This record gives sequence, C-alpha cells and structure tokens, in this order.
Amino acid sequence: MHIHYSCLAWEAGKPLVIEEVEVAPPQAMEVRLKILFTSLCHTDVYFWEAKGQTPLFPRIFGHEAGGIVESVGEGVTDLEPGDHVLPVFTGECKECRHCKSEESNMCDLLRINTDRGVMLNDGKSRFSINGQPIYHFVGTSTFSEYTVVHVGCVAKINPAAPLDKVCVLSCGISTGLGATLNVAKPGKGSTVAIFGLGAVGLAAAEGARMAGASRIIGVDLNSKRFNEAKKFGVTEFVNPKDHGKPVQEVIAEMTGGGVDRSVECTGNINAMISAYECVHDGWGVAVLVGVPNKDDAFKTHPMNVLNEKTLKGTFFGNYKPRSDLPLVVEKYMNKELQLEKFITHEVPFSEINKAFDYMLRGDSLRCVIRMDA
Amino acid sequence: MHIHYSCLAWEAGKPLVIEEVEVAPPQAMEVRLKILFTSLCHTDVYFWEAKGQTPLFPRIFGHEAGGIVESVGEGVTDLEPGDHVLPVFTGECKECRHCKSEESNMCDLLRINTDRGVMLNDGKSRFSINGQPIYHFVGTSTFSEYTVVHVGCVAKINPAAPLDKVCVLSCGISTGLGATLNVAKPGKGSTVAIFGLGAVGLAAAEGARMAGASRIIGVDLNSKRFNEAKKFGVTEFVNPKDHGKPVQEVIAEMTGGGVDRSVECTGNINAMISAYECVHDGWGVAVLVGVPNKDDAFKTHPMNVLNEKTLKGTFFGNYKPRSDLPLVVEKYMNKELQLEKFITHEVPFSEINKAFDYMLRGDSLRCVIRMDA
Repeated sequence: MHIHYSCLAWEAGKPLVIEEVEVAPPQAMEVRLKILFTSLCHTDVYFWEAKGQTPLFPRIFGHEAGGIVESVGEGVTDLEPGDHVLPVFTGECKECRHCKSEESNMCDLLRINTDRGVMLNDGKSRFSINGQPIYHFVGTSTFSEYTVVHVGCVAKINPAAPLDKVCVLSCGISTGLGATLNVAKPGKGSTVAIFGLGAVGLAAAEGARMAGASRIIGVDLNSKRFNEAKKFGVTEFVNPKDHGKPVQEVIAEMTGGGVDRSVECTGNINAMISAYECVHDGWGVAVLVGVPNKDDAFKTHPMNVLNEKTLKGTFFGNYKPRSDLPLVVEKYMNKELQLEKFITHEVPFSEINKAFDYMLRGDSLRCVIRMDA
Repeated sequence: MHIHYSCLAWEAGKPLVIEEVEVAPPQAMEVRLKILFTSLCHTDVYFWEAKGQTPLFPRIFGHEAGGIVESVGEGVTDLEPGDHVLPVFTGECKECRHCKSEESNMCDLLRINTDRGVMLNDGKSRFSINGQPIYHFVGTSTFSEYTVVHVGCVAKINPAAPLDKVCVLSCGISTGLGATLNVAKPGKGSTVAIFGLGAVGLAAAEGARMAGASRIIGVDLNSKRFNEAKKFGVTEFVNPKDHGKPVQEVIAEMTGGGVDRSVECTGNINAMISAYECVHDGWGVAVLVGVPNKDDAFKTHPMNVLNEKTLKGTFFGNYKPRSDLPLVVEKYMNKELQLEKFITHEVPFSEINKAFDYMLRGDSLRCVIRMDA
C-alpha cells in the first residue's frame, strides 16, 4: 500500500482537506511522481468553484508543479526513478499529426481534457480512500505528495534547476511567455501591448522584454497593477476606464497607428477585439491567450483583416511540453528569464487554503506550496 | 500637344466611348507610358457601375496593363524612355514605414485610393478634352494609348517578357497568386481550399499548385466552374448549395479535421467565415483576399482562434509592386507560372465594350485589349 497525504476537494467551492490517500502504481505508459513543489493557478480555482463546468468530486486539483520520478510503468523508456520533472496539463505523444507538425502543440491523444477525471489506460483513477476512487484533474493532480501521470505529460528537466522556482513553468508562466516568444514574435525595438496584467500577462510582458521590445504597453482595468508590472518590463500603462473612446483608438494614437504586436491575456471578449484592432495595418499581429466564455463571439470589420492585421491564438504558448519545456528551464538557468518576481507567496502544504485566499483576493501572482512542510 | 485615343466613361454604367484626349507631360516623379496591352478586371466594372461609391465622371478606367516608358518627369532616376513596365494601382515609395517593413506592402504615400481622380503632385488631372479635365482611376487609367503614372506605381520588368501576357500580372492574378505563395504559404503535400473560382481564386489555386499542394479543394456556388478550375490544379470541388450543412463542416469531413490552408477570394462575408473555420486546429491558416461590403462583420467563436487557427488578410498578394513584380514576371519566363490559361479572350481597343460584356456574362477570366488594333 502506497498511502500519502493529498489535498481533497470534496465539494465545489468548499475548503480543501488534507487526507491520507492511496496512490496506485503506474500502469503502462504512466509514471508515479513525488511532488516537491506545486503552485496555484486560476484554472484550479475555476474548476474548484465549478460554476458552469461539469462538477467532478471528490477530486485532487493542482497542475503546476515540480517533482521527481518515483517509479515507472510498463513501456516507459524516456524516464527513470530520480529524474527531475515538470508534470503538464497537456501532453505530447510524439506520434500524432499535431506532435509531428512543427506548428502545433495540440496533441490528439493528450490534449487537455478538463472533464476527464481518470487515467487513459484503463479509464480508472489511481487515487482512492478505502476503495472509493478520487478523481484526477487534467491528468496531473499535483496537490498531493504522490501522483500518477501519463509519460507524455511529463517534461524531464535539468536536475540542477531549483524545483521551487521552475515549478511555475508548468502552466501560466510558459503560456504567457510562449505567446510572445513563439507566436507574436516581436522584433527588437518593437512596440507590444499586453492586455491583462495577471501572471500570464506579466509573463507575456517578460517575453516582450526578453525579445528586446522598446515599448511595452500594459492594459488593465486595475491601475494598481502598473507598479508591479514595471518589474516585468511594462513601460506604459492604459486603463480603458480612464478614456472616453475605445482603448484600440487610444493605443493607435499613442503609437502612430497601432502596436506591432498585442497579446490578450484576460479572456474578455471585448479585450480580445480591442487587442486585435489595436495592431498596426500591414504588419500587426494579435495573439489571443485568454479563454473566452462559451457564448462569446469575436466580431470585427473584415477590412481590418484585409488591411493585413493577423489574428492568432495559442494554447500553452505553443510549447510542446516534453520537447520545449526543458529549454525554457534552461532560459531560467542562464538568467535570460527571471522567475523569482512571479513568486509572491509561499506556504506549507498544510496551509494550502491560504494560497486560494491570496489568489481570490488578487494579492498573489504565484503562491508556491511546499509539499514537505 | 500630345493627343491620343482614350476610352472614356462619361457616366456610370453607360457604354465607354473612344475619343481623342490630350495627355499632359509627366510632372515631378511621374512617367508617361505608352500602353500596349490592358486587361479588364472586376474592379474596373465595379467603379464604372458606381453603385454605392463616390461617382467620379468623366473618367478613364483601366489598371491592368503592360507598356513602355515614353517620357519621364523631374527627379525620376529609376526609369528611362523605352523601359518595359507594368503600371500598378498601388505603389511603393520605398521610404515610408510600410515600404521599409519586410511584412507590409501598404505604402503610406501610394496605397490605393479609389476616390482620388487626380495626380498627387499638383492635385490635377493629366487628361483633358478641350481643357475639360478627365479623372484618373487608381493612378493608372490604362484604357488609353498614353497615360501618366507616379513612378512609385510602375514596375520595370524584363524587356523580353511578352507584354500581351504579363499585363495580367498588374492586379488580379498577382493578388491571388501572392495570397497563396506569400501569405498562406502551403507546404509541399498540403491541402488547400480556395473559395471563389474566378480569376483571383484560380490564381490562388495556381499558387497552391506551384507550392506542391496535394489536394486543392475549389468552393464555388457555380458548379460549371469546376471543369475550367481543373486546369489550375483544383483537384476536388464543393458547391455549398449541394450540402445540408455549413461548407466548413463538409471540408472538415473531407480532410480529417480541416485543410492546412484556405484562401477566400469572393468578398462574401459568409464565405470569409467558412474559409476561416474550415482550416485545421493547431496549424491552419486562412487568408482573406476578397473585399467585403462596408457593413459586414466577421464573426466567429473565439475558441477557433485559441485552437491555433490563424486569420490573415492580404492586399495585392503582399507583393511590393516595384520590388516584387519583376520577379513574378521571371516566374512566368522560366515557365514556373502559367499565364496563358487566364487569358480567355482578346479584343482590339475599338471593341473594348465587348470585354465588359464578356465579364458581365461571366464568360471570361481575362480579356486582353490590344491598344494598337
């Protein structure tokens, strides 16, 4: 019996409870990980609140984490016990059309599935309490001392990398960073607008800073965010509430016709449209990152398209988890990428509910949870 | 006095009349061209009909042509009398931000302006009859033995190129070809959908054939077009009227999830939306070419964007007229690009109204008008 402490969500929106859970051995193409650090992302909170989504409870949340391989299942050749890894909510089977395409990271087999609470191999959970199964979350369930993950959702990284820092690369930070570096691709000296200055947006700004953008315009409805955003390279700030005209017009006036690139990190449909329309004719590229509501419609005059404004979207910053994340970790190791400034809080596992409070109050960018404390 | 025959449109929608017109000498940064061949494009017909646009009459239409430089104005150093050239409805000043950008061809100074009937230098026309000025059309007015054009709107080409063939590269053919080759950029073996099988759409298909696409799916409401389209590399045909579901769903079923690239050449807003939604998740790119109506709204669910479908638009196939058109002519010269199949009709200048009839009846792709006959 492999019994460990996990953090359980028994009901939507109710405080999480740490309990002893049995974690079954990994099956074919699975690995069992010892999680050392995990951080909280909005998506955990969103599915824990379960307003509108299919509620799957009891469930173990968590999907940003760093850990060590404890054991491997049949057929696993890429990983062995002791490897340092980042589990990821989406995967890379390396065999489907998406994995074989240089342009896509939307693996057919392991693409995120928020409604599935079980493992692919047998359609069952690896977590249980006295025989009662506990649901997984996006294939990772990292709010647990041990978890079982498909090998295609595990990035093997440099063992010298500090897991308490690079764990935040499992989701939000890579999403924003990759949206800029892999998709928007601003040139040196270019102007970039970032919509939404939460962790994802600030990671997009960090990408623009790394790419050598000369002006990074942050757009947010909360003016308090500007001060912190300066640390991430944001040079100017626009609060749409301060202006009597659409923010795309304000930005066009500030920049002689529009920015070279924009990255939308809020998921608000109006911000998406503004982010598209604020880029310059001829060469502007807008990249959508934020996840919209089910009934939203993106609407613009087609002349904006004909005027050579490009609209792109991205999922996980276009990173392929196994192939690309190890290289992002190296960017941190060689000090090109700064991660410390994203980590505003740290709590022991026993106080995980505090991490939820920080996020719900809007106080934290990332709160890292130490599993051994 | 430099008096020659020009084809005048005295009133919207009324037959054109050939009359003697005085063509003034070129002013600073202008050249006077002897037009040898010109062809008729839908845009001429559209502005001649003048349904909705600002009517500017009397006017000399025509913007697809091949000719020879007769004289040059002050400051012109790139061209000299005798040069073989293609005049173009949009220009390249080589000095503005667009011209200096590798990504844009929307020159600030010389971008198409359909409402302007005069030359930039002095705000006046170079055409007159007994002192009465006759308006220019998009800076070219090639339905005339002689015309005056800004030097930035003239591409100097290989003098060995037959002007009666390459004249069609001045507008529609380059627009469709460049939409595929410069913007959609399909890979070898890829699948491409082309919406609208007129001259521009068939030129887009020709681009897909040249790029080595393995499947080229033509979409048109007129099934008769399929036979001709085969000559341009179209391998399959879909008529949206033959199906009880949206054409994007039909195409997704035919292709295992969507095409790699699509090019929209109708300007119909629903075709634009279908062209976008029919590309594959992860790597699909849709390129809009057709010009929409003033009040159209492009509308799609933003998840299509998040699923990594890219939306682009293009103007004149992203070709910079002076820098790039000479190279397109070379593609014809080395037999990579076939132009003969676009030229379905030929008439002498005296029968120019026949060219309008062929186009209005939907009989012609391109009708070349010989100025010396």
